[in-house]
Amino acid sequence: MSKPLILVTNDDGITAPGIKALVNVAKLFGEVFVIAPDKPQSGKGHGITISDPIRIRKVEVFDGVESYECSGTPVDCVKLGKTVLLKDRKIDICLSGINHGSNSSINIIYSGTMSAAMEAHLEGIPSIGFSLLDYSFDADFSTAERYIVEMLTLIFNKQKITENFLLNVNIPALPYDRIKGFQVCRQADARWIEEYVEATDPKGLKYYWLTGSFNHNDHKEDTDNYALEQGYISIVPSQYDLTDHNNIPKFKFLED
Amino acid sequence: MSKPLILVTNDDGITAPGIKALVNVAKLFGEVFVIAPDKPQSGKGHGITISDPIRIRKVEVFDGVESYECSGTPVDCVKLGKTVLLKDRKIDICLSGINHGSNSSINIIYSGTMSAAMEAHLEGIPSIGFSLLDYSFDADFSTAERYIVEMLTLIFNKQKITENFLLNVNIPALPYDRIKGFQVCRQADARWIEEYVEATDPKGLKYYWLTGSFNHNDHKEDTDNYALEQGYISIVPSQYDLTDHNNIPKFKFLED
Repeated sequence: MSKPLILVTNDDGITAPGIKALVNVAKLFGEVFVIAPDKPQSGKGHGITISDPIRIRKVEVFDGVESYECSGTPVDCVKLGKTVLLKDRKIDICLSGINHGSNSSINIIYSGTMSAAMEAHLEGIPSIGFSLLDYSFDADFSTAERYIVEMLTLIFNKQKITENFLLNVNIPALPYDRIKGFQVCRQADARWIEEYVEATDPKGLKYYWLTGSFNHNDHKEDTDNYALEQGYISIVPSQYDLTDHNNIPKFKFLED
Repeated sequence: MSKPLILVTNDDGITAPGIKALVNVAKLFGEVFVIAPDKPQSGKGHGITISDPIRIRKVEVFDGVESYECSGTPVDCVKLGKTVLLKDRKIDICLSGINHGSNSSINIIYSGTMSAAMEAHLEGIPSIGFSLLDYSFDADFSTAERYIVEMLTLIFNKQKITENFLLNVNIPALPYDRIKGFQVCRQADARWIEEYVEATDPKGLKYYWLTGSFNHNDHKEDTDNYALEQGYISIVPSQYDLTDHNNIPKFKFLED
């Protein structure tokens, strides 16, 4: 095949080290095109901008890579990339990340990184979101880069990008030699225990700030959380059908 | 059972006619508590506010109903309602809406209304999101109210609120007598065809504004879109596991 066209985006913003690492890797596999938020957009979920205008601006951030920063959400970035900036071209694959922090388990639903990947997927573009389990801005992405190269080599060699798919990939914050490999698994049924810090601003007005701890309450061996705890990179094939198919019969009584 | 505690929220903002209609209905079934955004939050998906403080303010909007407006997203409203304002009480059910406009098919993923309901569900609270297929601010909610009363009567009488569930309910914009009843169905595999209006602002700077048309390309008889086209109210039992379970074996080659 000719050189694949790779759309790269993220949710931490176009200047985050994580997207730089991902662009470095993507350049090994094809022509890279970047559109990413002009500011951090973590936790934006599948938000889109419908009541405001969106701005895009061409920027020189990555050597030899056409790049745009966008005032919208990660999902807006994918929509604008596909519909406006690359409207006459076929995007072969979308890579989102590398996120600074975990998107395993229920985090996928809050994640701008994974929502961008999800948006590409539902628009027919095979898509992978990558996250490193290190929230710090200056995290070391070198190990993640090496493993992403290995994974994409397999994906491209097996020509899997001819079909549509969505993968949620989480990488433990471990040295290269301590990572045991890849595990394909399901999303753990775990969630956050929310807390709010309550405080007052300089004007004496009360405010709340979200915090919390993650409750790893699903320890089954086929989950992404388990794989990560064991030192594996977790890969969860994902999709956008939220129907609870098993419970359709149970609610048929409402049709009476 | 004692009077159920009903948490009501929405994404169109606390002053939208849709939430007023839902509060009117909810009062027939229990003690109502409202926390809703202080401004329209359509299309916010499952966004949460993590990098900014959140404000809440007690307001007098609905007669005899304790109500708060919140500077955050619909999901923030549910989190604050459960974690802060009602932290010592058990919420029996969460009702979200009535949304001004459709949340059928893929719209569930962009919808603040359904994301609020989803958040309550994943925190263990049975939850229902309601939408009326009329985008206008002054839509007539009286037919929707009548049918929601009928539906909640069935739900409460069968004591289904003792288990956790999530329902996505869409109501056609039709007179009472032209609605044929309820259908329990799956989320249609349909989506938007995006377009962006390109224009320049008063300073001569270019901007983009999202628009588009819905592509009803999944017409199977078991879908929500089909039910709505036939004049039924669609009810889709929904859930938060995004794993594509069928495709886990296909990606096992990545473990080699």
